[in-house]
Amino acid sequence: MSEALQPGAVIGILGGGQLGRMLSVAASRLGFRCHVYDPAPAPPAGHVAERVTTAGWEDAAALAAFAASVDAITLEFENIPTAALDVLEPLCPVRPGRRALEISQDRLAEKDFLNALGLRTAPYAAVADAESLEAALGKIGAPAILKTARLGYDGKGQARIMVPGDAPAALAAMAGAPSVLEGFVHFSHEVSVIVARGLSGEVVCYDPGENVHEGGILRTTTVPARLAPGQHMEAVLLAGKIVNALDYVGVMGVELFVTAEGLVVNEIAPRVHNSGHWTQAGCAVDQFEQHIRAVTGLPLGNGARHADVVMENLIGDEVARLPELLRAPDTSVHLYGKGDARPGRKMGHVNRIIR
Amino acid sequence: MSEALQPGAVIGILGGGQLGRMLSVAASRLGFRCHVYDPAPAPPAGHVAERVTTAGWEDAAALAAFAASVDAITLEFENIPTAALDVLEPLCPVRPGRRALEISQDRLAEKDFLNALGLRTAPYAAVADAESLEAALGKIGAPAILKTARLGYDGKGQARIMVPGDAPAALAAMAGAPSVLEGFVHFSHEVSVIVARGLSGEVVCYDPGENVHEGGILRTTTVPARLAPGQHMEAVLLAGKIVNALDYVGVMGVELFVTAEGLVVNEIAPRVHNSGHWTQAGCAVDQFEQHIRAVTGLPLGNGARHADVVMENLIGDEVARLPELLRAPDTSVHLYGKGDARPGRKMGHVNRIIR
Repeated sequence: MSEALQPGAVIGILGGGQLGRMLSVAASRLGFRCHVYDPAPAPPAGHVAERVTTAGWEDAAALAAFAASVDAITLEFENIPTAALDVLEPLCPVRPGRRALEISQDRLAEKDFLNALGLRTAPYAAVADAESLEAALGKIGAPAILKTARLGYDGKGQARIMVPGDAPAALAAMAGAPSVLEGFVHFSHEVSVIVARGLSGEVVCYDPGENVHEGGILRTTTVPARLAPGQHMEAVLLAGKIVNALDYVGVMGVELFVTAEGLVVNEIAPRVHNSGHWTQAGCAVDQFEQHIRAVTGLPLGNGARHADVVMENLIGDEVARLPELLRAPDTSVHLYGKGDARPGRKMGHVNRIIR
Repeated sequence: MSEALQPGAVIGILGGGQLGRMLSVAASRLGFRCHVYDPAPAPPAGHVAERVTTAGWEDAAALAAFAASVDAITLEFENIPTAALDVLEPLCPVRPGRRALEISQDRLAEKDFLNALGLRTAPYAAVADAESLEAALGKIGAPAILKTARLGYDGKGQARIMVPGDAPAALAAMAGAPSVLEGFVHFSHEVSVIVARGLSGEVVCYDPGENVHEGGILRTTTVPARLAPGQHMEAVLLAGKIVNALDYVGVMGVELFVTAEGLVVNEIAPRVHNSGHWTQAGCAVDQFEQHIRAVTGLPLGNGARHADVVMENLIGDEVARLPELLRAPDTSVHLYGKGDARPGRKMGHVNRIIR
């Protein structure tokens, strides 16, 4: 169970976007090779992986061949269809495993799980139709946010209900999908904890980063985050509690609201996380390598931070700032190799060391 | 001439060892793709490059096809046969160019070039046979080192002459190859300067690192090096003089002896250099990315160092130290993906941040 993969072993990565790309680079640093599986042709991770399979999540034969070609499987995004896991799991270890994916694929399951652990979340209620939405609004009140329970990502599939009269339009925006109504949380700022749990059960946290979002998309993460010492410890213990409860293997991003009453869990992501990109500049072992270490059964890095960092995403045509950013001192530019700078598309990020 | 390649452009890398591997990773950070050319099958760089060509340096058709498939060509080692350059150069820019390669492929040409620039080297003389060796020993004295003029690498093709009686055995070890006799330099320590020159002619130096060799192989590089402020500046100016004289494009390693009489140039390497690996941990833009920036016509990073670093090579079976190294604080491990840990083979390196 806790035997480490040997150098030269092949790691299968489900999803070939920028996270898979940076996972592949980290794997190479540890002497591993990568095989990326993605439904879309020419994925960004393909530029730095030894092998790429282009096939859909429903292609059982391609999934089986992929599983047979690798020594362990991990993933860069949580919305892998369960049917694909049914094919992969009997053939090859998938880390993190099914339970973490099932929970994070469904906002309702996630909130139920977190509350059962004794952690605080926004007030929430399941919504299936106009009647249950009315009941939910009665319980939670407006303003609130209606979100589809599944496949939410970067602000998609969400509708605000500022006053009860907004309810019909919000429900219509869900297009009949099972949804969750979430109450607003009055928070001063958002932080996230990048936590890792190894195959042997060891848990390591990075220092929490402070996040700023715009239009539902992460703009910047700054470390250290503004947290009282007690909050820092609370954030770390809480993240550890989550990964231990799931018998989790890999890196997880835990987003937290900082409120006057304490920390409230916004959401968890069972994968490397945009708000952990700062670790590339601030730590000897970044979140991508930490994840690969966990997935391959190697010991985790200790997570110590040697520098303060501001991470900034380059979204859409902001890549045009490249000439200036390339000249900026103490600044590392990371581009994802995506051709088309569509609005809202994450094209790269920048880590700036503060000294 | 100074127009930068666009993201998505393909960089051809001649040689697929660890240097090509780390160049390929750096290129991906800037959104470029890589095509590696190596005579040996399954080169380490192939794990992180989009494409690999396995063909010899004499294979003109393969070289031409390679050149046609890329937007610029660079290299990870200096001993590219001139005939291969004859094929490549008319088809695609090769950076750094022929002159730097010709000079660094031949110890005699290199020493002539450096002395013509007004820089100091070890005393030296060309040796072709017993007669010229005797004359050289008469001029330089013993102890001295006889080295083949071409294809010297990591202490291979060298023979010490401690007393004149060692001369015949040393000459025999050269196996008839044109050689150079070099006098010993009495130095306190060795440093190296990693210097970069961009396509536009801008020059950027990293802080000099202090090197320790064992058996002709680099063991450690420590930054900062022990250098008086005046020596630091002298080292930087000297490195700049060399790259400007060659109209050089790319990163170059300049090895220097620190002596009571000043700095003496040991040798130059027209490529990223083992003694520059520390930049991965100590600088926002490491030597590999700096080289890719130069070769693609992008602006250079400013070279500022934000941390003190000790780089240590993992040679042969020292990779067995991996479990301990993976747990060491502030330590980044880089493995090269080589299967066979032969004695003397560079298997990886470790960067440790000192704070």
